[in-house]
Amino acid sequence: MAHERATGRGVREIASPANALLKVFRRALADGVTREGWLAVEGPHLVEEALDAGESSVRSKVIVQSVLVAHGVATKFRELLERLTRDAEVTEVPDRLFDSVAQTETPQGIAALVELTPYDIAAAFARPDALILVACGLQDPGNLGTMMRSAQALGGSALVTLPATVSPFNPKAVRSSAGAIFRLPVFRNDHPARLVERAKSAGVVLVAADRHASLAAVDADLRGPVAFLIGQEAAGLPDEIARHAAVRVSVPIRADTDSLNASTAASILLYEAARQRGFKS
Amino acid sequence: MAHERATGRGVREIASPANALLKVFRRALADGVTREGWLAVEGPHLVEEALDAGESSVRSKVIVQSVLVAHGVATKFRELLERLTRDAEVTEVPDRLFDSVAQTETPQGIAALVELTPYDIAAAFARPDALILVACGLQDPGNLGTMMRSAQALGGSALVTLPATVSPFNPKAVRSSAGAIFRLPVFRNDHPARLVERAKSAGVVLVAADRHASLAAVDADLRGPVAFLIGQEAAGLPDEIARHAAVRVSVPIRADTDSLNASTAASILLYEAARQRGFKS
Repeated sequence: MAHERATGRGVREIASPANALLKVFRRALADGVTREGWLAVEGPHLVEEALDAGESSVRSKVIVQSVLVAHGVATKFRELLERLTRDAEVTEVPDRLFDSVAQTETPQGIAALVELTPYDIAAAFARPDALILVACGLQDPGNLGTMMRSAQALGGSALVTLPATVSPFNPKAVRSSAGAIFRLPVFRNDHPARLVERAKSAGVVLVAADRHASLAAVDADLRGPVAFLIGQEAAGLPDEIARHAAVRVSVPIRADTDSLNASTAASILLYEAARQRGFKS
Repeated sequence: MAHERATGRGVREIASPANALLKVFRRALADGVTREGWLAVEGPHLVEEALDAGESSVRSKVIVQSVLVAHGVATKFRELLERLTRDAEVTEVPDRLFDSVAQTETPQGIAALVELTPYDIAAAFARPDALILVACGLQDPGNLGTMMRSAQALGGSALVTLPATVSPFNPKAVRSSAGAIFRLPVFRNDHPARLVERAKSAGVVLVAADRHASLAAVDADLRGPVAFLIGQEAAGLPDEIARHAAVRVSVPIRADTDSLNASTAASILLYEAARQRGFKS
């Protein structure tokens, strides 16, 4: 049943909770991605970020493929829906059906499936100003999302995750990224040996974030291409990857203090590199 | 019913869910504080942090007053319980009773009520190296906790919250602080006019964190006593306080990026001040 709505486009309506599309959304919003690898996001802010990133000329393709909207708030999101491409599919559902699909505590009536064109990881490493975060075993999705947000904001060129690290497509990570996931090149489940090889051939220096390192970040030269290795919140860096680091740096902290939050430490290292490079807004 | 346990101290046992102490713990673990203002914490890590802070000579008093422990794990925490003062009260309960009181998703079998002696706010402002965070309306307890953690780690001297800001004693804020709440002077619900007056008379410069400020933090002189004003996650700084700032600074970010996470921005400003001051571990 398709008809013309306020948005001037075909809008499907669904009233049955057993509908296949609803099942796809429900599952994808819980997992973070669909089976074809499309990102599932909730709320107008993330949908808007996806549309902004898709319209931005400086990056690879971000395509909002399918939008689910709650009947009661559909007119509120008219401007957002008007920005969709012709091929995008819009489906309107009763409010309580939307809420049953949503995974956030206070559903905001809009969700979308977003296709992200894969980035070329070699190109990200080949940049002369490469500034890369490598998440080595982090478990907290909020921390990983904040790392993506900081990397994107502070001029970082990519985020790489090693195996046994929380997924960057985890819904909480995507929310904490505040849209950075649509702009920052993100590579998931990279193999440590491949990462080491890639960094070596591209001339990217592996810098281990190590709270016990005697070299403070401010005294390290971070102006050339670098990749910061960020360890797991409690256990730190696994030796498997840490032993390949050319240098270990710390952020100086009070002696009676255990550590900084992992995403805070990563953000400060990005800031220190950006500062040394004279990074401007 | 009191008897000697492995810990060599009197241990009470409780088996009834209606017990008054359990009610106190249940309520305090949900609210973060008891009616007398004692902090309620869960898990061995925070209990240990409280004991460490209490034994540290450089700070004011932190007293673990009452510990609740689940029967099944009591021996595991023997070392921790042996560190309690003679006056501390230890109560053992069946595991499922502990779990019914706990507020964390995976209860770890130990919780405590901790008395924090109030700090002298004037003394914190009078320090020649004052480095203060002022949380102006933040709503996310995780962000506030991370700010306390960073302030403590990076040589900060206090955290102040204005009214309409999430409580630093919120259980999630306390967890995110990773024990910093036991070491960093924290002042809650300070009145903006009083804060401005106190800063003025102590010679502390109010520095607004403003993503639109043209002055980058790196170009501001942050070596003297400063207090950073950190605004609410989405809305930024309320004008009521922002107009009293002597200077506004930004952390340079990419033009196509909205902002950094509030606690990340606060942490980077602390780092920049510490860097300018030559702060070492």
